[in-house]
Amino acid sequence: MMDERGEIFTEFGFIDDLMNRAVKAKGVDCISSSENIPVSPLGPGDDCSVLDCMNTDFGLQTLVTKDIMSEDIHFSWKWISPAELGYKVMAVNLSDIAAMGGRPLQAFAGLSLRGSDALSIKEKSEGILNGIIEACSEFDVLLCGGDTCASAHGDFISITLTGESVPDCLGRGRAVLRSGAVPGDSIILLGSLGESAAGLRLLEMFGRSGDCLLPDSMAQLDSTARFDLDARQRVIYSHIRPEPLVPQAQRLARASLLNSLIDISDGLVQDLGHICRQSKVGMVLNEAGLEPGMELGRICSKYGWNSLDLILSGGEDYALAGTASRESTERILSIMKQEFPLCPVAVIGEVISRDSQPGAYESDDGSAEGDRVEGALSIRCLSGDIISLEKKGWDHFADPGQ
Amino acid sequence: MMDERGEIFTEFGFIDDLMNRAVKAKGVDCISSSENIPVSPLGPGDDCSVLDCMNTDFGLQTLVTKDIMSEDIHFSWKWISPAELGYKVMAVNLSDIAAMGGRPLQAFAGLSLRGSDALSIKEKSEGILNGIIEACSEFDVLLCGGDTCASAHGDFISITLTGESVPDCLGRGRAVLRSGAVPGDSIILLGSLGESAAGLRLLEMFGRSGDCLLPDSMAQLDSTARFDLDARQRVIYSHIRPEPLVPQAQRLARASLLNSLIDISDGLVQDLGHICRQSKVGMVLNEAGLEPGMELGRICSKYGWNSLDLILSGGEDYALAGTASRESTERILSIMKQEFPLCPVAVIGEVISRDSQPGAYESDDGSAEGDRVEGALSIRCLSGDIISLEKKGWDHFADPGQ
Repeated sequence: MMDERGEIFTEFGFIDDLMNRAVKAKGVDCISSSENIPVSPLGPGDDCSVLDCMNTDFGLQTLVTKDIMSEDIHFSWKWISPAELGYKVMAVNLSDIAAMGGRPLQAFAGLSLRGSDALSIKEKSEGILNGIIEACSEFDVLLCGGDTCASAHGDFISITLTGESVPDCLGRGRAVLRSGAVPGDSIILLGSLGESAAGLRLLEMFGRSGDCLLPDSMAQLDSTARFDLDARQRVIYSHIRPEPLVPQAQRLARASLLNSLIDISDGLVQDLGHICRQSKVGMVLNEAGLEPGMELGRICSKYGWNSLDLILSGGEDYALAGTASRESTERILSIMKQEFPLCPVAVIGEVISRDSQPGAYESDDGSAEGDRVEGALSIRCLSGDIISLEKKGWDHFADPGQ
Repeated sequence: MMDERGEIFTEFGFIDDLMNRAVKAKGVDCISSSENIPVSPLGPGDDCSVLDCMNTDFGLQTLVTKDIMSEDIHFSWKWISPAELGYKVMAVNLSDIAAMGGRPLQAFAGLSLRGSDALSIKEKSEGILNGIIEACSEFDVLLCGGDTCASAHGDFISITLTGESVPDCLGRGRAVLRSGAVPGDSIILLGSLGESAAGLRLLEMFGRSGDCLLPDSMAQLDSTARFDLDARQRVIYSHIRPEPLVPQAQRLARASLLNSLIDISDGLVQDLGHICRQSKVGMVLNEAGLEPGMELGRICSKYGWNSLDLILSGGEDYALAGTASRESTERILSIMKQEFPLCPVAVIGEVISRDSQPGAYESDDGSAEGDRVEGALSIRCLSGDIISLEKKGWDHFADPGQ
């Protein structure tokens, strides 16, 4: 993000800085705040903080994530209701636990809300609470506490969600990290990409009234128009109500099938870049594996959007991308097909060694530029050509005429 | 607080509602989210959520608190720097852990910040981070993670702080709650009251330039004026940089000396009201025990303020008020004098039975009106008269002419 004075400010740089300085302030590499309670935070670079401090009887790790949603940055009251927002902010945090293969446990909700003509603080807080409780109930999370206060400016919701790693087939209970990808791994995508971004574009174009873009009379529509309408409603729904893939990730982590895992909150290219960086590997995606789903394809044809652009960089899908050996990949595909038949799964590329791919790598010093992954990621086009997906490279790829 | 549509919205009501509904959603009274991990949240009604879920080897309880600071509600950039704000937001959360007699462990920081002409996002985040790290270092807390994002509106900081209860002399590691006060207990105050509110008034009157209200030339001031100046700087400092009484509370909890404890964030009357409500007791304060400190007394004389009003309802002092048996009270006074000679300590009243005092009590149904404690709290004036401190009663008491 760029602030008003034109300085570049990256979230990743800030968190890097925070962790490095916190560690430095303690004067040690691996931090123990107590004799009894060893604490070794793994981070930055993963979706959750990982603490070895608790549940030592079971050898599990405690996971903690904290994601904020800030008005007009992450959501707009123009097209989300309080209950939908409450559900979504939990989904975003649940997805971080899913991205470590973990099991969510306890939530703490912080709300700073401003009353308005359209919605009073009471209406907002009750609606948000309903949404939070609905998500907690669905994913067996206990809402353990919170803080709520007035806001003089916009609305702001902060969730802290704890979880625990799950024991794998060897009895180890280690979280699945971003740093475990090895050359030769397949890249596996769980869930769909691009729909949330398409839904947001539709909301920005048409707004939302009632139950998503309903026409005056359904009777006037022929079946093709109805199908289009349905497609639009579905992608909008993907944006408004993402489904965190918690049980799927947990199942695969228990079976020790994943070498690395991340959730796709900032777009596939950017998020896979984190795995490349943390695992010190490169990746080649296959365009053939990145076909849009039926609704997304239809929406993109209708509005002339490049679906690959949305798939590679759309963000906010809360799909999961992981890497696994070839043998594990076959088991993953089989498990997903049998146990989660409604969740899309696809092999979308492969992990290669850094040296196999040209391009400049960032330094590992945790500087603000440190999340650049130029050259680490490329795509094998349907034509057979391999094109580098540099930080913004896919823009050119998506529309070579620009 | 009152929202723009005039509806009364209480934080306490919201948290009550949240906890009651979260418990109801799970369909049980004492909640266990797992066979292995019993979870029994104590709340609402205490400063932290209390979880029995961790550190079971040591019989300790895990404490979690989450406090937000929201721009122009809890702070103003007119008179606080980013580093001071970072320190203060940690102090506010540390005070919640202190209020359970606990030991703070890990912090997670969420920032949503907006760049401005005066301060860029980078300057704000770096400064806030410096303040957070300073407080973490001072209180041996590990900063384990966070989330930072842009804000389109005001600035928000949300801290989640974990801690643990400390083992007492019987080897039990139970947090000190608000519900343990019994008739006959003394009410003990650790720290000073009213200074923070006086400091805020001065900031609102005079603003802040550089190092707190410095005159053009110290040389022009006689010794009385210098002393006044110093007093003003001190009370402003109390507002800007509260000192959470973590080691003091921990020491007394380890020695099993406290029956109940709370921190004074919303004003003495309101916060003692929580103990009355949770413990189902009444209280009589002694005006004689509530003398202002020297600086506060001098400031109040100078500006014609009623010091008792500031002491009873000022808030944001992050002092601690607890109750203890008579024998324990003597030990507390002795320990404080020997081990924490710089921390003020005073016996400010006594706990009585509900029935000993007239007045209406709130229902226990957790309704929005549930934090009213009319009639539970009264004060024995210097004249010997006993006057009820109803919810806003002390306003009349402070200025009978109004």
